[in-house]
Amino acid sequence: MTVTNDRNLPDEALDRVFHALSDRTRRALVARLLEGPASVKELADPFPVTLPAIGKHLRVLEAAGLMHREIRGRTHICSLTPEALSDAASWLQTYRMFWEESLASLANEAERKEGD
Amino acid sequence: MTVTNDRNLPDEALDRVFHALSDRTRRALVARLLEGPASVKELADPFPVTLPAIGKHLRVLEAAGLMHREIRGRTHICSLTPEALSDAASWLQTYRMFWEESLASLANEAERKEGD
Repeated sequence: MTVTNDRNLPDEALDRVFHALSDRTRRALVARLLEGPASVKELADPFPVTLPAIGKHLRVLEAAGLMHREIRGRTHICSLTPEALSDAASWLQTYRMFWEESLASLANEAERKEGD
Repeated sequence: MTVTNDRNLPDEALDRVFHALSDRTRRALVARLLEGPASVKELADPFPVTLPAIGKHLRVLEAAGLMHREIRGRTHICSLTPEALSDAASWLQTYRMFWEESLASLANEAERKEGD
């Protein structure tokens, strides 16, 4: 079995996407950006962390190709690049039928044991 | 919008699952384990890295709840715990409709520009 996805994304790129999603603040930023573009300040406001800390998280999202920014004067407007999320979902999707089979057989085994 | 999933998985747990998936060797180990249980040696064989390096990757997968091992004499038999993969997929699934809308509107915009 080999790892494939729709865009044939290189391993390095998928490493970066999953790494970007491995932090709850970054996942919350992605969730916020799915609602639409926002300035860095708007993105930072709901979080109890400093603006530089949010800036660092945003750079991780950018490096993973999950986000891009447009500079309008002194304001940076951040937007999601949803393709990268699709790549991560595609990787998981490739294997979904395998783990669903595993979960089903675990459930069957549990039922069988209860019946003993 | 808040992050939810079927098992209401705590943020820390989801952090660990995505972190575990952020390495191509660990993703390949998960892919192999989806085919069925295997010994550490069987898991290590296809990889051009040392057995201790594979051992370290397996501990990351265990810490994320993606894998468990059964010790039979001197052999460790590793098996996938597929629930944790489902949790990661559920997180992505929660947002799929948002990014699919985003992708659709990007495609529409591109078509509109071509028509100009």
